[in-house]
Amino acid sequence: MTRLLAAAGLALFTTGPAAAETATGSELRGTGDLGVVIERASGSVALVDTTRREVLRHVGGFGDLSHASVKFSRDARYAFVFGRDGGLTKLDLLTGEIAGRVIQSGNSIGGAISQDGRFVAVGNYEPGGVKVFDSETLALVADVPADYEKADGSIAQAKVVGVVDAPGNRFVFSLFEAGEIWTLDMSGDEPVLDKHRDVGQEPYDALISGNGRYYIAGLFGEDGMALLDLWHPEKGVERILPGYGRGEERLPVYKMPHLEGWAMAGDLAFFPAVGRHEVLVADSDNWSLVGRIPVQGQPIFVMSRPDERQVWVTFAHPDNGRVQVIDTQTLEVIETLEPGESILHKEFTPRGEHIWISARDSNQVVVYDTRTFEELARLPAESPSGIFFTHRAHQIGL
Amino acid sequence: MTRLLAAAGLALFTTGPAAAETATGSELRGTGDLGVVIERASGSVALVDTTRREVLRHVGGFGDLSHASVKFSRDARYAFVFGRDGGLTKLDLLTGEIAGRVIQSGNSIGGAISQDGRFVAVGNYEPGGVKVFDSETLALVADVPADYEKADGSIAQAKVVGVVDAPGNRFVFSLFEAGEIWTLDMSGDEPVLDKHRDVGQEPYDALISGNGRYYIAGLFGEDGMALLDLWHPEKGVERILPGYGRGEERLPVYKMPHLEGWAMAGDLAFFPAVGRHEVLVADSDNWSLVGRIPVQGQPIFVMSRPDERQVWVTFAHPDNGRVQVIDTQTLEVIETLEPGESILHKEFTPRGEHIWISARDSNQVVVYDTRTFEELARLPAESPSGIFFTHRAHQIGL
Repeated sequence: MTRLLAAAGLALFTTGPAAAETATGSELRGTGDLGVVIERASGSVALVDTTRREVLRHVGGFGDLSHASVKFSRDARYAFVFGRDGGLTKLDLLTGEIAGRVIQSGNSIGGAISQDGRFVAVGNYEPGGVKVFDSETLALVADVPADYEKADGSIAQAKVVGVVDAPGNRFVFSLFEAGEIWTLDMSGDEPVLDKHRDVGQEPYDALISGNGRYYIAGLFGEDGMALLDLWHPEKGVERILPGYGRGEERLPVYKMPHLEGWAMAGDLAFFPAVGRHEVLVADSDNWSLVGRIPVQGQPIFVMSRPDERQVWVTFAHPDNGRVQVIDTQTLEVIETLEPGESILHKEFTPRGEHIWISARDSNQVVVYDTRTFEELARLPAESPSGIFFTHRAHQIGL
Repeated sequence: MTRLLAAAGLALFTTGPAAAETATGSELRGTGDLGVVIERASGSVALVDTTRREVLRHVGGFGDLSHASVKFSRDARYAFVFGRDGGLTKLDLLTGEIAGRVIQSGNSIGGAISQDGRFVAVGNYEPGGVKVFDSETLALVADVPADYEKADGSIAQAKVVGVVDAPGNRFVFSLFEAGEIWTLDMSGDEPVLDKHRDVGQEPYDALISGNGRYYIAGLFGEDGMALLDLWHPEKGVERILPGYGRGEERLPVYKMPHLEGWAMAGDLAFFPAVGRHEVLVADSDNWSLVGRIPVQGQPIFVMSRPDERQVWVTFAHPDNGRVQVIDTQTLEVIETLEPGESILHKEFTPRGEHIWISARDSNQVVVYDTRTFEELARLPAESPSGIFFTHRAHQIGL
């Protein structure tokens, strides 16, 4: 390597820090470096700036955010916040004002925004089903009950989990009690529903690959996962990683793992094992289990850095004070961090240079450099949980 | 499939069109659906909105844009326009005003923005070399001459091509006459340069994979490409697809192909063959040539739809009135479109539902639905060439 300053003919210039700006009520600004942190105890969110690494303001009025997730409009101006109380709230990131709010069910688990940005779909627990709203007006566009036939022949509604968007303006989701995966095609004049039955016991969450091809639901009622190839739905749903527990007794499950995000590196996919202190590694060519990485607790979120060179893992109680980093080449844990108490969620900056981690019981969001593991900032937030940055607006399945 | 309207218990509601807004001089708006179209003859750009599919305004004062490219600030508010006259111009997308401009060389070919957004690097033809600027102020930060030793022992400057950003706040670029690939690490207090020599004859352009791992330079002086694995720079540069012309005579090359964008689908990568009516298909596991797809002209831009299911190809004169679409599963051309005269560039919307195509001699940008191939809009633009949307701000190498 050549130290540039020592190289002939090479000049180095220094510049001052960037001009400080003030976060005003309706500042003219780009929305590409904004984000939302859920403040679960107070039903509020913290609006954050990932360039300055600052909280711009706190906004209240979202109802029950004890479980919540967020999607963004295609112009990256608005956040759609899905609350536990069935509330769907549209937040204007530029003014900090709530631009719309509907209580659309008794209990919801999350949702998705369509490829073209026109529709917001919400998956509901109580009653089960999916409702689709116009993203501009929050007017109801379609109501899809999650009816299924029980063993005794009666009809019931299932809880809907794992709602994602897929190319072709489709939504894909899973029915917990029914063990089914449905797709909802919103591309034509009329929505079209397609049902895959007997996909496995109790799908509890799901993810979709970055190209929108593979929808994978985790199964709670059995060891394994259900895979739907959306390029070939006619092939039906395939069971993958069956029996990964190999008959060993499962530990008590303190918290359901999440499949949000897609931890993928080259041909390898990384998943949390339910009730085990392991991250599972699958070969995405044939979805066979090729590795188990021992970690320090039950994994909850297993997310890959955008450049796929690291996988970051958060854990269930009582091991939720630590975060571990796996090297995707050696498949070994290379770092253990202790950002604070009750780590709930994390989010990479779009190109992966930083990660933001919420430490609920420390009332802090901690920012790290992902290359050096240096702590860069500690921001105040009220019982922070989910962290979501606006670049998700532009990605399939996020 | 179930037609939802016919399904029991399912309701469909209609909503009105989105409220029309006016594009004012300094409108409070999200910047996630903005873009820039280069107007090459007039040295101006058209600011566009991809949701409304409209030109918001035309902005002049960019100098010579007969060859130009664009990068975006990490907040997606500013565009950095690299012009043929060596001008680096910073455009405020919200106000339409030029926020800064420097003539930094006599002739430049393009540039990149660092992972952390702080630095803009420009690759120059005349004189050769790379200059790095502060993205806030456009102050010069580092000046890297592209010195190399010629066969006669004298020192000359090479044209710099294929400048991209890579994780770790690095820039990677190629030296045309020298046949070298250099990396410039901006992560520390001092920039650090690393040189790979004898990579092949006349690298003319380059791309980096979406995860920032593989840097691939096309070679003009020989059939083949040069591959640098940035996870393992110690392994040096490997030659791939050697002799893909198999001794057959090359057609006269009317226009250099571009390697911007990364046409990748699963394990397959798609490249333009220089001087041949073929798109080359390589297996990204070992970079061997696994297919040649006959197309209707000499390919220039070979770009994959974000969901990787299609690859869209533009062509050199005299076949530049048509665009072809390849199915990445069958490796066959499935559609040929004729958007207008002299097709120069194209850009997918972030999630791939639409494509925008510039038809220079028709003075139009044409928007298509990528699923149905339906034409959605025809927008006026003065000799349009490059099209760039703001979601590039959030992607490695774009």
